[in-house]
Amino acid sequence: MNTFELPQYVSADRPLGPDGLEEALRDIGARRYHILHPFHRLLHDGALNKGQVQAWALNRYCYQAHIPKKDALLMARLPSVGLRREWRRRIVDHDGEDEGEGARGGDDGGIERWLRLTTGLGLDRDYVRDMVGILPATRFAVEAYVHFVAEKPLLEAIASSLTELFSPKIISERVSGMLANYDFVDAETLAYFNKRLTQAPRDSDFALNYVREHAVRPDQQQAVLDALTFKCNVLWAQLDALHSAYVAPGLIPPGAYQP
Amino acid sequence: MNTFELPQYVSADRPLGPDGLEEALRDIGARRYHILHPFHRLLHDGALNKGQVQAWALNRYCYQAHIPKKDALLMARLPSVGLRREWRRRIVDHDGEDEGEGARGGDDGGIERWLRLTTGLGLDRDYVRDMVGILPATRFAVEAYVHFVAEKPLLEAIASSLTELFSPKIISERVSGMLANYDFVDAETLAYFNKRLTQAPRDSDFALNYVREHAVRPDQQQAVLDALTFKCNVLWAQLDALHSAYVAPGLIPPGAYQP
Repeated sequence: MNTFELPQYVSADRPLGPDGLEEALRDIGARRYHILHPFHRLLHDGALNKGQVQAWALNRYCYQAHIPKKDALLMARLPSVGLRREWRRRIVDHDGEDEGEGARGGDDGGIERWLRLTTGLGLDRDYVRDMVGILPATRFAVEAYVHFVAEKPLLEAIASSLTELFSPKIISERVSGMLANYDFVDAETLAYFNKRLTQAPRDSDFALNYVREHAVRPDQQQAVLDALTFKCNVLWAQLDALHSAYVAPGLIPPGAYQP
Repeated sequence: MNTFELPQYVSADRPLGPDGLEEALRDIGARRYHILHPFHRLLHDGALNKGQVQAWALNRYCYQAHIPKKDALLMARLPSVGLRREWRRRIVDHDGEDEGEGARGGDDGGIERWLRLTTGLGLDRDYVRDMVGILPATRFAVEAYVHFVAEKPLLEAIASSLTELFSPKIISERVSGMLANYDFVDAETLAYFNKRLTQAPRDSDFALNYVREHAVRPDQQQAVLDALTFKCNVLWAQLDALHSAYVAPGLIPPGAYQP
Protein backbone atom coordinates (compact mmCIF):
# COMPACT_ATOMS: atom_id res chain seq x y z
CA MET A 1 0.00 0.00 0.00
CA ASN A 2 1.23 3.45 -0.83
CA THR A 3 0.59 5.62 2.19
CA PHE A 4 1.44 8.63 0.09
CA GLU A 5 -1.31 7.96 -2.45
CA LEU A 6 -3.16 11.17 -3.09
CA PRO A 7 -6.88 11.35 -2.59
CA GLN A 8 -8.93 12.41 -5.60
CA TYR A 9 -9.64 16.02 -4.80
CA VAL A 10 -11.37 17.21 -7.96
CA SER A 11 -14.13 15.55 -9.96
CA ALA A 12 -14.39 16.31 -13.67
CA ASP A 13 -17.91 17.73 -13.51
CA ARG A 14 -17.94 19.62 -10.24
CA PRO A 15 -15.31 22.24 -9.39
CA LEU A 16 -14.21 22.94 -5.85
CA GLY A 17 -14.89 26.26 -4.22
CA PRO A 18 -11.88 28.44 -3.34
CA ASP A 19 -11.86 27.09 0.23
CA GLY A 20 -12.08 23.50 -0.98
CA LEU A 21 -9.18 24.11 -3.34
CA GLU A 22 -7.08 25.64 -0.57
CA GLU A 23 -7.88 22.69 1.66
CA ALA A 24 -6.73 20.27 -1.05
CA LEU A 25 -3.51 22.25 -1.52
CA ARG A 26 -2.82 22.16 2.20
CA ASP A 27 -3.51 18.43 2.26
CA ILE A 28 -0.88 17.84 -0.42
CA GLY A 29 1.58 19.75 1.72
CA ALA A 30 0.66 17.65 4.74
CA ARG A 31 1.42 14.50 2.77
CA ARG A 32 4.35 15.45 0.57
CA TYR A 33 6.25 18.47 1.86
CA HIS A 34 9.89 17.69 2.62
CA ILE A 35 9.43 18.43 6.30
CA LEU A 36 8.43 14.72 6.32
CA HIS A 37 11.77 13.60 4.87
CA PRO A 38 14.14 11.75 7.23
CA PHE A 39 17.02 14.00 6.19
CA HIS A 40 15.20 17.05 7.53
CA ARG A 41 14.67 15.33 10.86
CA LEU A 42 18.35 14.34 11.05
CA LEU A 43 19.34 17.92 10.20
CA HIS A 44 17.25 19.63 12.84
CA ASP A 45 17.77 16.94 15.50
CA GLY A 46 21.52 17.53 15.38
CA ALA A 47 22.15 14.01 14.12
CA LEU A 48 24.34 15.07 11.21
CA ASN A 49 28.06 15.75 11.33
CA LYS A 50 29.61 18.92 9.98
CA GLY A 51 30.45 17.38 6.61
CA GLN A 52 26.83 16.33 6.11
CA VAL A 53 25.57 19.81 7.02
CA GLN A 54 28.13 21.25 4.58
CA ALA A 55 26.82 18.97 1.83
CA TRP A 56 23.27 20.12 2.55
CA ALA A 57 24.18 23.81 2.44
CA LEU A 58 26.32 23.36 -0.67
CA ASN A 59 23.57 21.60 -2.59
CA ARG A 60 20.83 23.89 -1.38
CA TYR A 61 22.89 26.81 -2.73
CA CYS A 62 22.15 25.51 -6.23
CA TYR A 63 18.44 25.79 -5.48
CA GLN A 64 18.77 29.29 -4.01
CA ALA A 65 20.87 30.51 -6.91
CA HIS A 66 18.27 29.44 -9.47
CA ILE A 67 15.26 31.01 -7.75
CA PRO A 68 15.70 34.50 -9.28
CA LYS A 69 16.07 32.88 -12.71
CA LYS A 70 12.82 31.03 -12.13
CA ASP A 71 11.13 34.20 -10.92
CA ALA A 72 12.42 36.27 -13.85
CA LEU A 73 11.02 33.71 -16.30
CA LEU A 74 7.70 33.86 -14.50
CA MET A 75 7.69 37.65 -14.29
CA ALA A 76 8.34 37.87 -18.03
CA ARG A 77 5.00 36.18 -18.59
CA LEU A 78 2.91 38.28 -16.20
CA PRO A 79 0.46 40.50 -18.08
CA SER A 80 0.33 43.65 -15.96
CA VAL A 81 2.52 46.20 -14.25
CA GLY A 82 0.92 45.44 -10.89
CA LEU A 83 1.51 41.69 -11.10
CA ARG A 84 5.11 42.18 -12.25
CA ARG A 85 5.74 44.61 -9.37
CA GLU A 86 4.34 42.05 -6.98
CA TRP A 87 6.50 39.24 -8.34
CA ARG A 88 9.59 41.46 -8.62
CA ARG A 89 9.82 41.59 -4.82
CA ARG A 90 10.88 37.96 -4.86
CA ILE A 91 13.85 38.77 -7.06
CA VAL A 92 14.78 41.71 -4.84
CA ASP A 93 14.62 39.37 -1.84
CA HIS A 94 17.12 36.98 -3.40
CA ASP A 95 19.40 39.34 -5.31
CA GLY A 96 19.33 42.23 -2.84
CA GLU A 97 19.71 45.94 -3.43
CA ASP A 98 23.46 46.49 -3.31
CA GLU A 99 26.79 44.86 -2.65
CA GLY A 100 27.53 45.35 1.02
CA GLU A 101 25.19 44.15 3.72
CA GLY A 102 23.94 47.22 5.49
CA ALA A 103 25.72 49.56 3.08
CA ARG A 104 23.55 52.67 2.68
CA GLY A 105 21.05 50.82 4.85
CA GLY A 106 20.85 48.27 2.06
CA ASP A 107 20.53 44.56 1.78
CA ASP A 108 22.68 42.19 -0.26
CA GLY A 109 19.97 39.58 -0.61
CA GLY A 110 19.18 35.96 0.13
CA ILE A 111 21.82 34.44 -2.12
CA GLU A 112 24.54 36.38 -0.32
CA ARG A 113 23.02 35.37 3.01
CA TRP A 114 23.16 31.75 1.88
CA LEU A 115 26.83 32.20 0.99
CA ARG A 116 27.43 33.49 4.53
CA LEU A 117 25.94 30.22 5.75
CA THR A 118 28.20 28.08 3.53
CA THR A 119 31.22 30.22 4.44
CA GLY A 120 30.32 29.93 8.12
CA LEU A 121 30.32 26.17 7.63
CA GLY A 122 33.88 26.33 6.29
CA LEU A 123 33.18 25.99 2.56
CA ASP A 124 35.13 28.05 0.06
CA ARG A 125 32.96 30.77 -1.46
CA ASP A 126 34.15 30.24 -5.03
CA TYR A 127 33.76 26.46 -4.76
CA VAL A 128 30.15 26.93 -3.69
CA ARG A 129 29.39 29.50 -6.40
CA ASP A 130 30.93 27.35 -9.15
CA MET A 131 28.58 24.51 -8.13
CA VAL A 132 31.07 21.94 -9.38
CA GLY A 133 30.68 19.72 -6.33
CA ILE A 134 26.90 19.60 -6.13
CA LEU A 135 25.06 16.35 -6.74
CA PRO A 136 23.88 15.93 -10.34
CA ALA A 137 20.46 14.98 -8.93
CA THR A 138 20.28 18.38 -7.21
CA ARG A 139 20.95 20.19 -10.46
CA PHE A 140 18.44 18.05 -12.37
CA ALA A 141 15.70 18.74 -9.81
CA VAL A 142 16.41 22.47 -9.71
CA GLU A 143 16.51 22.75 -13.50
CA ALA A 144 13.27 20.80 -13.72
CA TYR A 145 11.70 23.51 -11.58
CA VAL A 146 13.06 26.31 -13.78
CA HIS A 147 11.82 24.55 -16.93
CA PHE A 148 8.43 23.91 -15.36
CA VAL A 149 7.96 27.60 -14.64
CA ALA A 150 9.14 28.57 -18.13
CA GLU A 151 6.98 26.07 -20.01
CA LYS A 152 3.75 25.44 -18.10
CA PRO A 153 0.71 27.75 -18.16
CA LEU A 154 1.09 30.78 -15.91
CA LEU A 155 -1.45 29.50 -13.40
CA GLU A 156 0.57 26.32 -12.84
CA ALA A 157 3.83 28.24 -12.73
CA ILE A 158 2.43 30.40 -9.94
CA ALA A 159 0.94 27.40 -8.14
CA SER A 160 4.32 25.67 -8.08
CA SER A 161 5.52 28.38 -5.67
CA LEU A 162 2.94 27.35 -3.09
CA THR A 163 5.33 25.18 -1.10
CA GLU A 164 6.00 28.52 0.60
CA LEU A 165 2.71 27.98 2.42
CA PHE A 166 4.53 25.34 4.44
CA SER A 167 8.00 26.86 4.76
CA PRO A 168 7.62 28.91 7.98
CA LYS A 169 7.21 25.69 9.97
CA ILE A 170 10.21 23.91 8.42
CA ILE A 171 12.35 27.03 8.80
CA SER A 172 11.45 27.40 12.48
CA GLU A 173 12.29 23.76 13.13
CA ARG A 174 15.51 24.05 11.19
CA VAL A 175 16.78 27.20 12.89
CA SER A 176 15.95 26.19 16.46
CA GLY A 177 17.22 22.64 15.91
CA MET A 178 20.45 23.71 14.26
CA LEU A 179 21.22 26.40 16.83
CA ALA A 180 20.59 24.01 19.69
CA ASN A 181 22.53 21.09 18.26
CA TYR A 182 25.49 22.29 16.20
CA ASP A 183 28.35 24.27 17.71
CA PHE A 184 29.54 25.13 14.18
CA VAL A 185 26.34 27.11 13.48
CA ASP A 186 25.31 30.46 14.95
CA ALA A 187 22.49 32.98 14.53
CA GLU A 188 24.63 35.07 12.16
CA THR A 189 25.19 32.22 9.71
CA LEU A 190 21.47 31.38 9.82
CA ALA A 191 20.42 34.96 8.98
CA TYR A 192 18.99 33.75 5.67
CA PHE A 193 16.14 32.00 7.40
CA ASN A 194 15.03 34.92 9.57
CA LYS A 195 14.30 36.98 6.48
CA ARG A 196 12.38 34.12 4.91
CA LEU A 197 10.06 33.94 7.90
CA THR A 198 8.47 37.22 6.83
CA GLN A 199 9.08 37.01 3.05
CA ALA A 200 7.60 33.55 2.49
CA PRO A 201 4.15 34.24 3.99
CA ARG A 202 3.83 37.52 2.06
CA ASP A 203 4.69 35.68 -1.19
CA SER A 204 2.53 32.66 -0.53
CA ASP A 205 -0.47 34.86 0.44
CA PHE A 206 -0.28 36.47 -2.98
CA ALA A 207 0.14 33.20 -4.88
CA LEU A 208 -2.61 31.49 -2.91
CA ASN A 209 -5.07 34.32 -3.58
CA TYR A 210 -4.15 34.27 -7.26
CA VAL A 211 -4.76 30.53 -7.46
CA ARG A 212 -8.00 30.72 -5.47
CA GLU A 213 -9.27 33.34 -7.88
CA HIS A 214 -8.05 31.90 -11.22
CA ALA A 215 -8.30 28.12 -10.82
CA VAL A 216 -12.05 27.77 -11.29
CA ARG A 217 -12.61 24.90 -13.73
CA PRO A 218 -11.94 21.33 -12.54
CA ASP A 219 -9.11 20.88 -15.08
CA GLN A 220 -7.46 24.09 -13.86
CA GLN A 221 -7.82 22.98 -10.26
CA GLN A 222 -6.31 19.58 -11.02
CA ALA A 223 -3.41 21.27 -12.83
CA VAL A 224 -2.79 23.51 -9.82
CA LEU A 225 -2.76 20.53 -7.47
CA ASP A 226 -0.39 18.70 -9.82
CA ALA A 227 1.88 21.74 -9.91
CA LEU A 228 2.18 21.76 -6.13
CA THR A 229 2.80 18.00 -6.14
CA PHE A 230 5.54 18.50 -8.74
CA LYS A 231 7.17 21.15 -6.59
CA CYS A 232 7.02 18.95 -3.50
CA ASN A 233 8.81 16.30 -5.60
CA VAL A 234 11.50 18.83 -6.53
CA LEU A 235 12.21 19.50 -2.86
CA TRP A 236 11.89 15.86 -1.78
CA ALA A 237 14.26 14.63 -4.52
CA GLN A 238 16.94 17.03 -3.28
CA LEU A 239 16.81 15.54 0.24
CA ASP A 240 16.68 12.00 -1.20
CA ALA A 241 19.90 12.68 -3.09
CA LEU A 242 21.60 14.17 -0.02
CA HIS A 243 20.48 11.26 2.13
CA SER A 244 21.66 8.68 -0.39
CA ALA A 245 25.04 10.33 -0.93
CA TYR A 246 25.90 11.48 2.59
CA VAL A 247 23.85 9.43 5.08
CA ALA A 248 22.77 6.03 3.77
CA PRO A 249 24.02 4.18 1.84
CA GLY A 250 26.63 6.96 1.57
CA LEU A 251 27.09 6.53 -2.15
CA ILE A 252 28.69 9.78 -3.32
CA PRO A 253 28.38 10.12 -7.11
CA PRO A 254 31.49 10.69 -9.25
CA GLY A 255 32.71 14.28 -8.97
CA ALA A 256 30.46 15.33 -6.09
CA TYR A 257 31.65 16.97 -2.87
CA GLN A 258 33.56 14.69 -0.54
CA PRO A 259 33.38 16.10 3.00
CA MET B 1 40.13 12.49 -1.66
CA ASN B 2 37.76 12.20 -4.56
CA THR B 3 38.74 9.09 -6.52
CA PHE B 4 36.39 10.20 -9.27
CA GLU B 5 38.20 13.50 -9.83
CA LEU B 6 38.72 13.95 -13.55
CA PRO B 7 42.20 14.51 -14.90
CA GLN B 8 42.72 17.69 -16.88
CA TYR B 9 42.59 16.42 -20.44
CA VAL B 10 42.73 19.64 -22.44
CA SER B 11 45.01 22.64 -22.02
CA ALA B 12 43.77 26.03 -23.19
CA ASP B 13 46.59 26.61 -25.67
CA ARG B 14 47.18 23.15 -27.14
CA PRO B 15 44.34 21.07 -28.60
CA LEU B 16 44.35 17.29 -28.52
CA GLY B 17 44.57 15.28 -31.72
CA PRO B 18 41.55 13.15 -32.64
CA ASP B 19 43.12 10.08 -31.01
CA GLY B 20 43.94 12.02 -27.85
CA LEU B 21 40.36 13.27 -27.70
CA GLU B 22 38.98 9.76 -28.14
CA GLU B 23 41.29 8.50 -25.42
CA ALA B 24 40.03 11.20 -23.05
CA LEU B 25 36.41 10.31 -23.86
CA ARG B 26 37.07 6.65 -23.17
CA ASP B 27 38.79 7.56 -19.91
CA ILE B 28 35.70 9.43 -18.75
CA GLY B 29 33.65 6.34 -19.50
CA ALA B 30 36.09 4.19 -17.54
CA ARG B 31 35.64 6.46 -14.52
CA ARG B 32 32.01 7.49 -14.66
CA TYR B 33 29.87 5.10 -16.72
CA HIS B 34 27.08 3.52 -14.68
CA ILE B 35 28.55 0.04 -15.16
CA LEU B 36 30.50 1.08 -12.03
CA HIS B 37 27.33 1.71 -10.00
CA PRO B 38 26.53 -0.80 -7.23
CA PHE B 39 22.95 -1.11 -8.48
CA HIS B 40 24.16 -2.47 -11.82
CA ARG B 41 26.24 -5.09 -10.05
CA LEU B 42 23.30 -6.11 -7.87
CA LEU B 43 21.10 -6.34 -10.97
CA HIS B 44 23.37 -8.56 -13.02
CA ASP B 45 24.56 -10.63 -10.06
CA GLY B 46 21.00 -11.70 -9.35
CA ALA B 47 21.02 -10.01 -5.97
CA LEU B 48 17.76 -8.12 -6.52
CA ASN B 49 14.27 -9.43 -5.88
CA LYS B 50 11.54 -9.25 -8.47
CA GLY B 51 10.08 -6.01 -7.10
CA GLN B 52 13.46 -4.31 -7.37
CA VAL B 53 13.90 -5.51 -10.96
CA GLN B 54 10.39 -4.25 -11.71
CA ALA B 55 11.27 -0.84 -10.28
CA TRP B 56 14.39 -0.73 -12.48
CA ALA B 57 12.46 -1.65 -15.65
CA LEU B 58 9.62 0.75 -14.82
CA ASN B 59 11.94 3.69 -14.29
CA ARG B 60 14.16 2.87 -17.22
CA TYR B 61 11.04 2.96 -19.41
CA CYS B 62 10.89 6.71 -18.80
CA TYR B 63 14.39 7.03 -20.22
CA GLN B 64 13.60 4.82 -23.25
CA ALA B 65 10.37 6.69 -23.97
CA HIS B 66 12.15 10.06 -24.09
CA ILE B 67 15.00 8.99 -26.41
CA PRO B 68 13.09 9.60 -29.67
CA LYS B 69 12.06 13.03 -28.40
CA LYS B 70 15.70 13.79 -27.68
CA ASP B 71 16.72 12.49 -31.11
CA ALA B 72 14.01 14.45 -32.91
CA LEU B 73 15.15 17.66 -31.22
CA LEU B 74 18.70 16.89 -32.29
CA MET B 75 17.70 15.93 -35.82
CA ALA B 76 15.79 19.20 -36.19
CA ARG B 77 19.09 21.02 -35.79
CA LEU B 78 21.18 18.95 -38.21
CA PRO B 79 22.12 20.98 -41.30
CA SER B 80 22.05 18.38 -44.10
CA VAL B 81 19.92 15.63 -45.57
CA GLY B 82 22.70 13.10 -45.06
CA LEU B 83 23.17 13.89 -41.38
CA ARG B 84 19.42 13.83 -40.75
CA ARG B 85 19.11 10.44 -42.50
CA GLU B 86 21.90 9.12 -40.32
CA TRP B 87 20.31 10.37 -37.12
CA ARG B 88 16.80 9.29 -38.18
CA ARG B 89 17.83 5.64 -37.85
CA ARG B 90 17.91 6.11 -34.10
CA ILE B 91 14.28 7.16 -34.08
CA VAL B 92 13.35 4.22 -36.28
CA ASP B 93 15.18 1.93 -33.86
CA HIS B 94 13.09 3.17 -30.94
CA ASP B 95 9.73 3.82 -32.59
CA GLY B 96 9.80 0.94 -35.07
CA GLU B 97 8.21 0.65 -38.49
CA ASP B 98 4.73 -0.66 -37.71
CA GLU B 99 2.43 -1.88 -35.00
CA GLY B 100 2.83 -5.64 -34.80
CA GLU B 101 6.18 -7.24 -34.17
CA GLY B 102 7.02 -9.17 -37.33
CA ALA B 103 3.92 -7.84 -39.15
CA ARG B 104 4.85 -7.42 -42.84
CA GLY B 105 8.36 -8.42 -41.81
CA GLY B 106 8.35 -5.25 -39.71
CA ASP B 107 9.62 -4.18 -36.39
CA ASP B 108 7.68 -2.42 -33.64
CA GLY B 109 10.75 -0.79 -32.14
CA GLY B 110 12.73 -0.53 -28.95
CA ILE B 111 10.04 1.14 -26.85
CA GLU B 112 7.63 -1.71 -27.57
CA ARG B 113 10.39 -4.20 -26.80
CA TRP B 114 10.92 -2.44 -23.49
CA LEU B 115 7.21 -2.75 -22.76
CA ARG B 116 7.50 -6.50 -23.42
CA LEU B 117 10.17 -6.54 -20.73
CA THR B 118 8.01 -4.68 -18.20
CA THR B 119 4.99 -6.83 -19.09
CA GLY B 120 7.13 -9.96 -18.75
CA LEU B 121 8.04 -8.73 -15.28
CA GLY B 122 4.36 -8.51 -14.37
CA LEU B 123 3.81 -4.77 -14.66
CA ASP B 124 0.63 -3.41 -16.19
CA ARG B 125 1.29 -1.92 -19.61
CA ASP B 126 -0.81 1.20 -19.06
CA TYR B 127 0.68 1.82 -15.63
CA VAL B 128 4.15 1.75 -17.19
CA ARG B 129 3.21 3.99 -20.12
CA ASP B 130 1.50 6.55 -17.87
CA MET B 131 4.76 6.85 -15.90
CA VAL B 132 2.82 7.83 -12.77
CA GLY B 133 4.87 5.54 -10.52
CA ILE B 134 8.35 6.46 -11.64
CA LEU B 135 10.71 8.22 -9.27
CA PRO B 136 10.69 12.00 -9.65
CA ALA B 137 14.49 11.85 -9.76
CA THR B 138 14.26 9.61 -12.84
CA ARG B 139 12.06 12.09 -14.63
CA PHE B 140 14.27 15.04 -13.66
CA ALA B 141 17.39 13.28 -14.97
CA VAL B 142 15.72 12.23 -18.22
CA GLU B 143 14.29 15.68 -18.84
CA ALA B 144 17.69 17.22 -18.11
CA TYR B 145 19.04 15.10 -20.96
CA VAL B 146 16.27 16.22 -23.34
CA HIS B 147 16.82 19.87 -22.44
CA PHE B 148 20.57 19.51 -22.81
CA VAL B 149 20.20 18.22 -26.36
CA ALA B 150 17.68 20.95 -27.22
CA GLU B 151 19.70 23.82 -25.79
CA LYS B 152 23.41 23.10 -26.10
CA PRO B 153 25.46 23.57 -29.28
CA LEU B 154 25.02 20.74 -31.78
CA LEU B 155 28.51 19.37 -31.19
CA GLU B 156 27.79 18.93 -27.47
CA ALA B 157 24.34 17.49 -28.15
CA ILE B 158 25.93 14.84 -30.38
CA ALA B 159 28.73 14.19 -27.88
CA SER B 160 26.20 13.52 -25.12
CA SER B 161 25.16 10.35 -27.00
CA LEU B 162 28.64 8.88 -26.64
CA THR B 163 27.80 6.78 -23.61
CA GLU B 164 26.81 4.32 -26.33
CA LEU B 165 30.53 3.67 -26.74
CA PHE B 166 30.33 1.79 -23.47
CA SER B 167 26.91 0.20 -23.69
CA PRO B 168 27.73 -3.15 -25.41
CA LYS B 169 29.69 -4.22 -22.34
CA ILE B 170 27.00 -3.28 -19.83
CA ILE B 171 24.30 -4.87 -21.98
CA SER B 172 26.24 -8.14 -22.27
CA GLU B 173 26.76 -8.26 -18.52
CA ARG B 174 23.13 -7.42 -17.89
CA VAL B 175 21.65 -9.99 -20.24
CA SER B 176 23.87 -12.90 -19.22
CA GLY B 177 23.59 -12.05 -15.54
CA MET B 178 19.83 -11.63 -15.60
CA LEU B 179 19.20 -14.80 -17.61
CA ALA B 180 21.43 -16.81 -15.31
CA ASN B 181 20.05 -15.44 -12.05
CA TYR B 182 16.37 -14.62 -12.37
CA ASP B 183 13.74 -17.25 -13.13
CA PHE B 184 11.22 -14.45 -13.88
CA VAL B 185 13.30 -13.27 -16.88
CA ASP B 186 13.77 -15.04 -20.22
CA ALA B 187 15.44 -14.33 -23.57
CA GLU B 188 12.14 -13.15 -25.06
CA THR B 189 11.61 -10.44 -22.44
CA LEU B 190 15.21 -9.32 -22.88
CA ALA B 191 14.87 -8.96 -26.68
CA TYR B 192 15.39 -5.21 -26.36
CA PHE B 193 19.02 -5.66 -25.51
CA ASN B 194 19.91 -7.96 -28.40
CA LYS B 195 18.95 -5.26 -30.88
CA ARG B 196 20.95 -2.66 -29.01
CA LEU B 197 24.11 -4.76 -29.31
CA THR B 198 24.23 -3.96 -33.04
CA GLN B 199 22.47 -0.57 -33.00
CA ALA B 200 24.60 1.08 -30.31
CA PRO B 201 28.02 0.52 -31.98
CA ARG B 202 26.69 1.75 -35.33
CA ASP B 203 25.36 4.92 -33.66
CA SER B 204 28.39 5.53 -31.49
CA ASP B 205 30.76 5.05 -34.47
CA PHE B 206 28.97 7.86 -36.25
CA ALA B 207 28.89 10.18 -33.23
CA LEU B 208 32.52 9.47 -32.36
CA ASN B 209 33.69 10.25 -35.90
CA TYR B 210 31.63 13.44 -35.90
CA VAL B 211 33.18 14.56 -32.64
CA ARG B 212 36.71 13.58 -33.70
CA GLU B 213 36.28 15.69 -36.83
CA HIS B 214 34.47 18.73 -35.41
CA ALA B 215 35.92 19.20 -31.91
CA VAL B 216 39.20 20.80 -32.88
CA ARG B 217 39.69 23.82 -30.63
CA PRO B 218 40.52 23.24 -26.95
CA ASP B 219 37.26 24.88 -25.83
CA GLN B 220 35.27 22.62 -28.16
CA GLN B 221 37.12 19.58 -26.87
CA GLN B 222 36.49 20.57 -23.27
CA ALA B 223 32.82 21.09 -24.07
CA VAL B 224 32.62 17.63 -25.65
CA LEU B 225 34.23 16.02 -22.61
CA ASP B 226 31.85 17.92 -20.34
CA ALA B 227 28.90 16.72 -22.42
CA LEU B 228 29.89 13.10 -21.97
CA THR B 229 30.41 13.71 -18.25
CA PHE B 230 26.95 15.26 -18.04
CA LYS B 231 25.42 12.23 -19.77
CA CYS B 232 27.24 9.83 -17.43
CA ASN B 233 25.70 11.82 -14.57
CA VAL B 234 22.23 11.40 -16.13
CA LEU B 235 22.64 7.62 -16.15
CA TRP B 236 24.31 7.46 -12.75
CA ALA B 237 21.63 9.58 -11.08
CA GLN B 238 18.96 7.16 -12.29
CA LEU B 239 20.68 4.22 -10.59
CA ASP B 240 21.32 6.32 -7.48
CA ALA B 241 17.61 7.03 -7.21
CA LEU B 242 16.69 3.36 -7.72
CA HIS B 243 19.25 2.26 -5.17
CA SER B 244 18.08 4.81 -2.61
CA ALA B 245 14.39 4.01 -3.07
CA TYR B 246 14.48 0.23 -3.49
CA VAL B 247 17.75 -1.11 -2.01
CA ALA B 248 19.23 1.12 0.67
CA PRO B 249 17.99 2.95 2.64
CA GLY B 250 14.77 1.90 0.87
CA LEU B 251 13.23 5.33 1.07
CA ILE B 252 10.48 5.31 -1.56
CA PRO B 253 9.37 8.88 -2.36
CA PRO B 254 5.69 9.87 -2.06
CA GLY B 255 3.67 8.53 -4.97
CA ALA B 256 6.38 6.27 -6.43
CA TYR B 257 5.93 2.58 -7.27
CA GLN B 258 5.64 0.31 -4.25
CA PRO B 259 6.60 -3.26 -5.28
